[in-house]
Amino acid sequence: MPVADAPTPRDVAELMRRSEGPTALLDIALDSIGTGHATASLTLDDRMLNGFGSAHGGILFLLADQAFAYACNSENIATVAQGGSITFLSPSRRGERIIAEATRSGQAGRTGVYDVQVRTGDGRLLAIFQGLSRSLERPVIETQNAGSD
Amino acid sequence: MPVADAPTPRDVAELMRRSEGPTALLDIALDSIGTGHATASLTLDDRMLNGFGSAHGGILFLLADQAFAYACNSENIATVAQGGSITFLSPSRRGERIIAEATRSGQAGRTGVYDVQVRTGDGRLLAIFQGLSRSLERPVIETQNAGSD
Amino acid sequence: MPVADAPTPRDVAELMRRSEGPTALLDIALDSIGTGHATASLTLDDRMLNGFGSAHGGILFLLADQAFAYACNSENIATVAQGGSITFLSPSRRGERIIAEATRSGQAGRTGVYDVQVRTGDGRLLAIFQGLSRSLERPVIETQNAGSD
Amino acid sequence: MPVADAPTPRDVAELMRRSEGPTALLDIALDSIGTGHATASLTLDDRMLNGFGSAHGGILFLLADQAFAYACNSENIATVAQGGSITFLSPSRRGERIIAEATRSGQAGRTGVYDVQVRTGDGRLLAIFQGLSRSLERPVIETQNAGSD
Repeated sequence: MPVADAPTPRDVAELMRRSEGPTALLDIALDSIGTGHATASLTLDDRMLNGFGSAHGGILFLLADQAFAYACNSENIATVAQGGSITFLSPSRRGERIIAEATRSGQAGRTGVYDVQVRTGDGRLLAIFQGLSRSLERPVIETQNAGSD
Repeated sequence: MPVADAPTPRDVAELMRRSEGPTALLDIALDSIGTGHATASLTLDDRMLNGFGSAHGGILFLLADQAFAYACNSENIATVAQGGSITFLSPSRRGERIIAEATRSGQAGRTGVYDVQVRTGDGRLLAIFQGLSRSLERPVIETQNAGSD
Repeated sequence: MPVADAPTPRDVAELMRRSEGPTALLDIALDSIGTGHATASLTLDDRMLNGFGSAHGGILFLLADQAFAYACNSENIATVAQGGSITFLSPSRRGERIIAEATRSGQAGRTGVYDVQVRTGDGRLLAIFQGLSRSLERPVIETQNAGSD
Repeated sequence: MPVADAPTPRDVAELMRRSEGPTALLDIALDSIGTGHATASLTLDDRMLNGFGSAHGGILFLLADQAFAYACNSENIATVAQGGSITFLSPSRRGERIIAEATRSGQAGRTGVYDVQVRTGDGRLLAIFQGLSRSLERPVIETQNAGSD
């Protein structure tokens, strides 16, 4: 009987993506994923703009939060957001590609801190996000334990 | 010639609502509005859920941020979010009505602080949001100045 | 043998105060204390000012954090700060009395959210603080359980 | 007549240090300073501990805030903190050296975002701080402008 391989960061993220509503709604791409980091992106359309014609703050938060979620579950330990904060630095406009890059900045016990930079495709910094995570101490994807036959 | 009345908080919010993408996308209602406070709500559907079947953190942030925006523009002084933070307290589920109630907690110069409580229709506290605003020192709706003749 | 009374919020806060370094260093007063709320204050002297002659941001945070600590331990459940954020709104000056008033804004499971307003004695709002607490699920002051003997 | 040299980051920080109360009170060292970054440190003594015998959260915030202040004024543009947030990750104890390292993470217009890691001398991560700055658009140290005659 084959031994189950440990799930990769991409395996975990792809499983998460299949059940997330906003991922399909806003067509959020997973551009890269590894242990403790992830990059997600979307293209700004009219549905995502505020009255100034710039990305709605909630859309930037959502994208950053999503990259954060992939990063903090990347080791196959189910982990939830306790909270997050975002600072808005520059406006954006319809049609721009928006990219959120999440990296782990610190961890102690069940708590993690992740920083996310939100930029346009040409590198303009739109927002900085910081998320606080808490691990649930169970796997996202159950793996086969060494059982007897 | 009639003298233009000063716009009410509702006038300002209704103008904002006509040009916001997420308001239409997520069918966000403006339940109440007054000077320095506003309540907005939506009903959770599949598009808004995370993989746990609970409201996506970005959706709760977006709704809170929207109530905050109505509250901080309510005096017809164009005001933008500099940033916001949210703490998630309880899960929710598909079909629940989610209500964000924003109130001004402090203001000095061009900076304001607003607190938003995000609850279910039956009063369960889902999240607490705090937003930092900055006024642009111009009206949202231009009013007629006292002109000659 | 007498049955031990449950400790009051003031009992808990007074016990905390005896072992806190900054309380003595900065002569922080406990002005009021009750279930889920507390008020603490100090008088600004030269040791607490920044280069602008205003309260150092760290001193305002420390005072707010201290009021938060009394409020979140007030039910005799040992509770620690997971973190806090502060927004600075107005300057202050040497000799002013600074008062931090903490109130509980939300709680779910072991997590609590507390808001603190930091004002001068004459009511000017200097800063707004929000703290996130986590209970350790043990008492601050052990009470006598009904023991045999 | 000699042309005035532009002040270095260290010139600016040393000027700030001479007028800050907490720097002398807590014996805060400036370990390194450059454009957009700074490191400050102190040794935990009884005056700085909470009731658990660990660094008081306000002391960690104050040290991080101080490193942030040196970093955000390092280009000789007077800059103030609009606010800051901190997440506490690990306890500390009396006698430990505590080091706060601040780096600029983003800037747009007059707003800057700085991240500070607070560690012990042996590298244990105690807290993560994020500060929001606002420039006042004037120098900290006035330099001689090219004058006539």
